Amino acid sequence: MTLEIISNAKCFGGMQGVFKHSSSSTQCDMTFAVFVPPQAATKACPVLWYLSGLTCSHANVMDKGEYRRAAAHYGIIIVCPDTSPRGDGVPDEAENWQMGQGAGFYLNATQAPWSTHYNMESYIVSELPEIIAQNFNVDMTRQAITGHSMGGHGALTLALKNSNRYKSCSAFAPIVQPSHAEWSSNAFRQYLGDDMAAWRQYDACALIEDGARFPEFLVDQGTSDGFLDSGLRPWFLEQACKAADIPLLLRMQEGYDHSYNFISTFMEEHLSWHAERLNG
Amino acid sequence: MTLEIISNAKCFGGMQGVFKHSSSSTQCDMTFAVFVPPQAATKACPVLWYLSGLTCSHANVMDKGEYRRAAAHYGIIIVCPDTSPRGDGVPDEAENWQMGQGAGFYLNATQAPWSTHYNMESYIVSELPEIIAQNFNVDMTRQAITGHSMGGHGALTLALKNSNRYKSCSAFAPIVQPSHAEWSSNAFRQYLGDDMAAWRQYDACALIEDGARFPEFLVDQGTSDGFLDSGLRPWFLEQACKAADIPLLLRMQEGYDHSYNFISTFMEEHLSWHAERLNG
Repeated sequence: MTLEIISNAKCFGGMQGVFKHSSSSTQCDMTFAVFVPPQAATKACPVLWYLSGLTCSHANVMDKGEYRRAAAHYGIIIVCPDTSPRGDGVPDEAENWQMGQGAGFYLNATQAPWSTHYNMESYIVSELPEIIAQNFNVDMTRQAITGHSMGGHGALTLALKNSNRYKSCSAFAPIVQPSHAEWSSNAFRQYLGDDMAAWRQYDACALIEDGARFPEFLVDQGTSDGFLDSGLRPWFLEQACKAADIPLLLRMQEGYDHSYNFISTFMEEHLSWHAERLNG
Repeated sequence: MTLEIISNAKCFGGMQGVFKHSSSSTQCDMTFAVFVPPQAATKACPVLWYLSGLTCSHANVMDKGEYRRAAAHYGIIIVCPDTSPRGDGVPDEAENWQMGQGAGFYLNATQAPWSTHYNMESYIVSELPEIIAQNFNVDMTRQAITGHSMGGHGALTLALKNSNRYKSCSAFAPIVQPSHAEWSSNAFRQYLGDDMAAWRQYDACALIEDGARFPEFLVDQGTSDGFLDSGLRPWFLEQACKAADIPLLLRMQEGYDHSYNFISTFMEEHLSWHAERLNG
């Protein structure tokens, strides 16, 4: 597997890189961003996966997420994957930002025409970790995962399904119940088919109801987020965690919206929280 | 004067806004970004002007500059203006990124067809400060100025020409001698005419040679900056400051390039440095 360097620049004492590779999971070229902190020059560092939201690529959080200062302080590698397969040969609904390219929902699609390329779960859980392990000075026994919106959904569900893999999981304004949220249920139907039983493994609340467990979650949610009532509804996660005795620190952040203004404000607190669990 | 709100969102406890207004200096609509720290709710705050480089608008540093955490900590209002007049009626050289829109060089043009709109010096020094004073809880007796590349040139020259206005001045990889640098001398000729005597008031090194003074400067410069030898050449500023007994803290930052990866790394140190001088 050849890793093509798109860019690589010194930042906060470490290196912020962007890389491209041919992916077997998604049958197309995939681009991702990695920040390598200065500590990696002398020792293997833990890794935090940051999964982005609808319409984003690896670049949005790299540009606006303000994670490098804290990552350099705590010595954490930050990997920011893309949100879907991309390219001319990849099916898309160009006029629908909630489906297709930019909207992979971190699942493995089972339905035509999506199932050939839309295998983001395998990409994030299997293929990309191998690439990271091969190319960076990373301690793969210390992994954590976070994400925003659709990426918060990805972080929660992948943590619940791989609880031995990730030491910690947090989320910014996650979609906690995508089977029923208006901006995701159409995508789930197209990717996974009409049988909603197949959707439950990609729905954090349903996974918990069905017995999946994780040690604890940290979730930040802005109170002025325009998607709060229609798509995010963290109270459903609160109910599911309470019923399952999963500790959830849900912080409703007064006046914050859904944007990177919100994410960047609380990024350092999330990195500090993960660092305690990765380095402890 | 009506200020149109383009966006305004809570960030790091303050508000990051983008505003548009009709400008008399540049004879077109101008857009700028302002970060208002939480302290402004209860008291007038000092202001730091950040002038951006070639090809940038107000948005690049707002997205990638990572100034809000420190600005909220120190209680400083950050104003990020655009780099030139813009619009269909504004002369441009669309194929030349070193001239026209995105390349105003913080001067008042004297030559046709540029002189009608390209009056960025008046805009930054006179018109925009009035707008900021009228619309935000700012203490205009405490102003500081900084900038990057072309904007570093702007910060240095405007500070030297208005030494009673600004309490402190720093720069990231500034163009210190634009009359002779290859990426600026063509623009100076078109904006200001063939008589190079008229260029000296827009050239930090020439201003100092001609007697302008400022208490001290802080300048950061990456050693891996691709423009170091052709366009930036901070050693000319070092020579001019030494001859004029102006204290200059020039820090050559090993391995850093010309991008926002460099700027964001040292942004907080610049804000801390200005805060000492604004709040002291």
